[in-house]
Amino acid sequence: MKIQPLGDRVVVKVVEVQEEKTKSGLYVPDTAKEKPQEAEVLAVGPGALNDKGERIPVDLKVGDKVIFSKYGGMEVKVDGEEYLILNAERDILGKLV
Amino acid sequence: MKIQPLGDRVVVKVVEVQEEKTKSGLYVPDTAKEKPQEAEVLAVGPGALNDKGERIPVDLKVGDKVIFSKYGGMEVKVDGEEYLILNAERDILGKLV
Amino acid sequence: MKIQPLGDRVVVKVVEVQEEKTKSGLYVPDTAKEKPQEAEVLAVGPGALNDKGERIPVDLKVGDKVIFSKYGGMEVKVDGEEYLILNAERDILGKLV
Amino acid sequence: MKIQPLGDRVVVKVVEVQEEKTKSGLYVPDTAKEKPQEAEVLAVGPGALNDKGERIPVDLKVGDKVIFSKYGGMEVKVDGEEYLILNAERDILGKLV
Amino acid sequence: MKIQPLGDRVVVKVVEVQEEKTKSGLYVPDTAKEKPQEAEVLAVGPGALNDKGERIPVDLKVGDKVIFSKYGGMEVKVDGEEYLILNAERDILGKLV
Amino acid sequence: MKIQPLGDRVVVKVVEVQEEKTKSGLYVPDTAKEKPQEAEVLAVGPGALNDKGERIPVDLKVGDKVIFSKYGGMEVKVDGEEYLILNAERDILGKLV
Amino acid sequence: MKIQPLGDRVVVKVVEVQEEKTKSGLYVPDTAKEKPQEAEVLAVGPGALNDKGERIPVDLKVGDKVIFSKYGGMEVKVDGEEYLILNAERDILGKLV
Repeated sequence: MKIQPLGDRVVVKVVEVQEEKTKSGLYVPDTAKEKPQEAEVLAVGPGALNDKGERIPVDLKVGDKVIFSKYGGMEVKVDGEEYLILNAERDILGKLV
Repeated sequence: MKIQPLGDRVVVKVVEVQEEKTKSGLYVPDTAKEKPQEAEVLAVGPGALNDKGERIPVDLKVGDKVIFSKYGGMEVKVDGEEYLILNAERDILGKLV
Repeated sequence: MKIQPLGDRVVVKVVEVQEEKTKSGLYVPDTAKEKPQEAEVLAVGPGALNDKGERIPVDLKVGDKVIFSKYGGMEVKVDGEEYLILNAERDILGKLV
Repeated sequence: MKIQPLGDRVVVKVVEVQEEKTKSGLYVPDTAKEKPQEAEVLAVGPGALNDKGERIPVDLKVGDKVIFSKYGGMEVKVDGEEYLILNAERDILGKLV
Repeated sequence: MKIQPLGDRVVVKVVEVQEEKTKSGLYVPDTAKEKPQEAEVLAVGPGALNDKGERIPVDLKVGDKVIFSKYGGMEVKVDGEEYLILNAERDILGKLV
Repeated sequence: MKIQPLGDRVVVKVVEVQEEKTKSGLYVPDTAKEKPQEAEVLAVGPGALNDKGERIPVDLKVGDKVIFSKYGGMEVKVDGEEYLILNAERDILGKLV
Repeated sequence: MKIQPLGDRVVVKVVEVQEEKTKSGLYVPDTAKEKPQEAEVLAVGPGALNDKGERIPVDLKVGDKVIFSKYGGMEVKVDGEEYLILNAERDILGKLV
């Protein structure tokens, strides 16, 4: 059983990041600012509908590593695994390339 | 007697989920985050009207299993059965496929 | 004397529903959620104006049984009878068919 | 001296309604809900401007009896008479016909 | 030195109104409602820009007597005289004709 | 080093105004209302983008004397001089001509 | 590993500014107002999507020195370096030229 997100939502798996990382890693600093997190994209919605009923494609694909705002999204569990459902436009800040 | 939803609303029947599920099930984790729930679609509205008076079809059909935000929707009872009326775009996060 | 609603407003007569209904009736459950109510449509406005000055017709007709959100609408009395004026798009959730 | 309203505003004269009316009258019930009131239209604005600079005509004319939301509008006095200036779209609920 | 307002703003001079006026005057009643005031238009902006970069002309001219909402506008003093800068669409309710 | 503002922002230099001015000056009265201030335009942005990706030019030029809302803008210092960055449409009320 | 921002976001490196600068520098004054900061642009998103699914290019390029609002943006760390992800339109006030 998998989740097929609607609209411009995406399903991601959060990547656990160790606090003290080596030179090739990313981590979220321990400050007062909002802290984004790293995740991997598992499923991408067909895109939001514009006013003409056309879908505006989401600029992401399965497998993308993304940084997302920790305050967005909803947690779900499928087959014992936890996932997040995010709004692509609002919650995802960038891809790691 | 049935409810035919207006606009982009859908009528769903909430699926009761046992807290400790086997490998093939989904459940909502017990955390501080908003907890979506599972439901089955019973009726789908004709879609929201755009500014030209055209209906934008809802991307759901009767029988779809969906995850929805628990904070959306209104409860109604028809013939002794409880249902929820949800906004497709705002309240439904994804389909289970 | 009758009320001809403007825009996408409709005039409805609230249907009193007994709390403990038989199999063919609808009632609003006694929970903490917002409780919609049943009503019959008596008059329908010409529709809201879009930005071009065109009317977008209301998807309801006189005689329709509807479920509406109890927190919408304004009460008026004409010839000693009480009615509600509702916004079709915002306040009416579905038709009973 | 008269008031020519701008945009989609209208000038109305409030109709005083006796609380206990005969069969052919309208009155506002004494409940906790917002109570609309009856008025007569005295002057109608040229309509709101859309984004192209075109006026969208107001669906009312001088002499119309209307029901309006008591919480809308501003009171003015001209030549010792009190009037209300209302927004047609927002404040006026329906015509009495 | 004069103020040339930008966008759909207008510069007005407030007209002092005696509380107890004769038959040909206007005054603002002493109630709990918002109280509009009388003013004379001294300068009119070129109009607000629409999304295409076109100006939508303001439906007022120098010399117009207007009623405006007392809660709108900003006070300025030029050469020792006090003026108000108002948003035409939002703050001005009607012309006195 | 200079600041080239983005979008419809402008860089201005605030003009210090003496409280008790002679006949040819402007000052902000000492009341409870919001008090606009005088400034000179030093740099003008290319204009805001509309939905088609076109720039809508700002109706101001370098050297213009403007009145702006004191609650808008951000202070910056370049080469030891203080400037304000304002939104043309929102913060600037009029030109002094 | 680098961050490729989505939409109209940009990745910047904050420039540390000494409080007491020489004639050719910029610093943020120590007042009660919001204090913008200086940064260098490292990566630019493809632009926000308009309603037709077209990208509206961001008016910035890699290497630009910008002033941004300190209250915008989110901090991330990649390979031990701290960066900020900003919304171009909302958070960036101007370029230093």
